Amino acid sequence: MMQNSDSVDQEQNLRVRKLEISDKGKGFIELLQQLSVCDSVSDKEFQDRFNEVSSLGDDHIICVVEDELRGRIIATGSIFIEKKFLRNCGKVGHIEDVVVDSSARGKQLGKKVIKFLTDHARSMGCYKVILDCSLENKAFYEKCGFKQKEVQMAMYFV
Amino acid sequence: MMQNSDSVDQEQNLRVRKLEISDKGKGFIELLQQLSVCDSVSDKEFQDRFNEVSSLGDDHIICVVEDELRGRIIATGSIFIEKKFLRNCGKVGHIEDVVVDSSARGKQLGKKVIKFLTDHARSMGCYKVILDCSLENKAFYEKCGFKQKEVQMAMYFV
Repeated sequence: MMQNSDSVDQEQNLRVRKLEISDKGKGFIELLQQLSVCDSVSDKEFQDRFNEVSSLGDDHIICVVEDELRGRIIATGSIFIEKKFLRNCGKVGHIEDVVVDSSARGKQLGKKVIKFLTDHARSMGCYKVILDCSLENKAFYEKCGFKQKEVQMAMYFV
Repeated sequence: MMQNSDSVDQEQNLRVRKLEISDKGKGFIELLQQLSVCDSVSDKEFQDRFNEVSSLGDDHIICVVEDELRGRIIATGSIFIEKKFLRNCGKVGHIEDVVVDSSARGKQLGKKVIKFLTDHARSMGCYKVILDCSLENKAFYEKCGFKQKEVQMAMYFV
């Protein structure tokens, strides 16, 4: 596999980091639109939500991968830390909204995002990390070290 | 069905409400032990976790059903509200840790807990509520109005 040299080459221009307020101008919302419904978000709405999430500190972080040559966000994923009474007042990391830009797939960016998020959960003392995915993405998460556990049920209000 | 009269009779002694700090003395931890691993929790640990969850206000609530004649907590479930950028800065309710005391099953207490939690999510403006469950509990959640959506993946650290 040529993956290693590609990966090194990529890494020179890629940065894996937490979401910053300026990422709205780097295509963060457009990236999310590849995952689910997301109309345009105003600067004010973005800033308000950014502040709400930031107020939780390490309990809710959003990881992004920036292509620094192009100044574009090309992958993202989030995690929040749930505090339970179960498991001796244990903590669980919940991974959400993982997406890689359609033009940047096959570059292991999804794995980088998942590693960033699971490392964070481990450092926060979580006893497990969970996520929900479609059947077609199951194999990807298995490669990342996840195992299928339960079924996800949903109730939609809108 | 005789369910209605049973339910009315039950309701005279049952209260569905948010967790209170005094619920540790009413068997809340012992109830959770019917769901998963939970060794005894000290008063200090309980209070610290209670305060952490309470600090999130309406963004993380724990519902309990108290049998007021016996002074015991006989059902519980929790929900936290995740704030997203997706769905036009939408919110999602995550239901966790639903359990009904083994001596109190068949009395629709699970449904009461789920109704309390989904009502809360709706009032908070969530566009959906999700939860993970075993295949054997799927039919129960379908009766509550949920539909199977994805698969849950987990990575355990301990």
